[in-house]
Amino acid sequence: MNPLRKHILELWSMIPFIGDGSWLHRHIKSNQLYLYNLRKRRLFKLADNVHFMGEVFSAGEKNISIGAHTHIGAHSIITAWDKTLDGTTHQPSIIIGSYANIGEYNHITATNKIQIGHNFLTGRWVTITDNSHGKTDYGSLQIPPLYRTVVSKGAVIIGDNVWIGDKATILPGVTIGNGSVIGANSVVSKDIPPYCIACGNPAKVIKSNSPEKDD
Amino acid sequence: MNPLRKHILELWSMIPFIGDGSWLHRHIKSNQLYLYNLRKRRLFKLADNVHFMGEVFSAGEKNISIGAHTHIGAHSIITAWDKTLDGTTHQPSIIIGSYANIGEYNHITATNKIQIGHNFLTGRWVTITDNSHGKTDYGSLQIPPLYRTVVSKGAVIIGDNVWIGDKATILPGVTIGNGSVIGANSVVSKDIPPYCIACGNPAKVIKSNSPEKDD
Amino acid sequence: MNPLRKHILELWSMIPFIGDGSWLHRHIKSNQLYLYNLRKRRLFKLADNVHFMGEVFSAGEKNISIGAHTHIGAHSIITAWDKTLDGTTHQPSIIIGSYANIGEYNHITATNKIQIGHNFLTGRWVTITDNSHGKTDYGSLQIPPLYRTVVSKGAVIIGDNVWIGDKATILPGVTIGNGSVIGANSVVSKDIPPYCIACGNPAKVIKSNSPEKDD
Repeated sequence: MNPLRKHILELWSMIPFIGDGSWLHRHIKSNQLYLYNLRKRRLFKLADNVHFMGEVFSAGEKNISIGAHTHIGAHSIITAWDKTLDGTTHQPSIIIGSYANIGEYNHITATNKIQIGHNFLTGRWVTITDNSHGKTDYGSLQIPPLYRTVVSKGAVIIGDNVWIGDKATILPGVTIGNGSVIGANSVVSKDIPPYCIACGNPAKVIKSNSPEKDD
Repeated sequence: MNPLRKHILELWSMIPFIGDGSWLHRHIKSNQLYLYNLRKRRLFKLADNVHFMGEVFSAGEKNISIGAHTHIGAHSIITAWDKTLDGTTHQPSIIIGSYANIGEYNHITATNKIQIGHNFLTGRWVTITDNSHGKTDYGSLQIPPLYRTVVSKGAVIIGDNVWIGDKATILPGVTIGNGSVIGANSVVSKDIPPYCIACGNPAKVIKSNSPEKDD
Repeated sequence: MNPLRKHILELWSMIPFIGDGSWLHRHIKSNQLYLYNLRKRRLFKLADNVHFMGEVFSAGEKNISIGAHTHIGAHSIITAWDKTLDGTTHQPSIIIGSYANIGEYNHITATNKIQIGHNFLTGRWVTITDNSHGKTDYGSLQIPPLYRTVVSKGAVIIGDNVWIGDKATILPGVTIGNGSVIGANSVVSKDIPPYCIACGNPAKVIKSNSPEKDD
């Protein structure tokens, strides 16, 4: 350990009470976070030039591949759960292509499979999930949500050159084709073909393109 | 005061100018926040094992009860206003049951009453409000919004085992029954019966359950 | 430089490796941010009593005017881009009136013009944009979104005394009249007349007022 860092830690140890949210508590947390992040980055399958633009929280890194020249926005959360609180196990994978630019505060969570193509662009507060907290029959809904059996309706597959606006949500089992644009605040619950503009809650295609009808 | 903390504060006092956002400014703020939070926690009606998972901003803590074994996500804001900028006074209450897991960045604000059952689960960026910035007649809309008379259309009552997805908003006067699920990005403006799945903006029931039709 | 600050920087220089997210790295970043923010504030066209309630990220400050007695919420982002990654240049302006209260985590971005009246009030996670990442024809959608030619459908003009709820999004080319209210999670894609209540995705007027029908 670096002598100054050691000295600082010794000073800290003199403090009888280090409360939640205190300056010293934060610094200790900050150092722990640093070591934690360093260790975590090694766990991911990262190509060259993957940039975490701030704190990125994650779980299941060995099942997460991120392509080259990619930026992951600060405060984003990427989790591939191989075990959930209900006790079930999963074989999740998250695969993000090259040259992705994921905005700040994105929330990507898998128990099954989320596969994203190249040149992906998202705004802020985008949610992408392939799973949900349990079935929706009467019996399941009487269990505390956190302890319901986590289920996946299917993989999320997103093509190349897709752009997703601020606050949109992509739900389980959805495929979004190459080049499509998802408007802000949209909720994508069904497949979106390639080269389409989709928006709304639930999202509907408001413009579609094909090579023939190109303007 | 702890001698080291005292020494640090003395060092700080040597600094002629501590600007907004500077390191030192932040540390002072951080210490103030610490003391502030310690004091605040004492003001709340907290059961055992209530965990604030980071900074939680609050107002009107004496009117906020939080049940046992509860986690409140970082960056959440819980406010029970007994006075608002328009000069009116209120008798607000926020009651959260046991084993709640409130996600990060939630926004819960009351001037009337928000009552939430046990085993509550929310995603990120969920808003729950029982009040709004004024009436919507022509005269009111000519007043600056912050100075309109804050009004509540009614209490928000949420049953047990309710799960609310990312970015959903629960509006004033709404009751959500036991076991119901509110989809991501939904805006709940009307009552949702028990054991239902509701989504959309405004939210509509897309699946309902009863003991008879259980699958 | 202040002697204590100098001393601290000297201590820092002793540390051989300052990693991303470490305590020391953060402090250096924090100091840089402080100097950066100080410099940035000078670049803005700010009236008296403009308060940044925490870190506000910005670009193109010389084209951003903010009126007196205004609060800009922490973690907000205000950008007026005079050049975008596709290589095109723009002449953007963002003009915010007096007594605005912009909530936390707002996202205001212009390449054309965003003009906002007095007494503006927004919730959290509000997006206001006058531009988008390119045209939506087949050819454009084959280009990586970040490199498409940024286009503006038109200016965003917001009147006086407008209140916008949490998570709403205001799209390019839209005018919102004086005194109107935009509900939480709304997506405003068309003009909203004065003294109206609009909500939904896309937003629709659910109540309109005129002096004659005042209640």
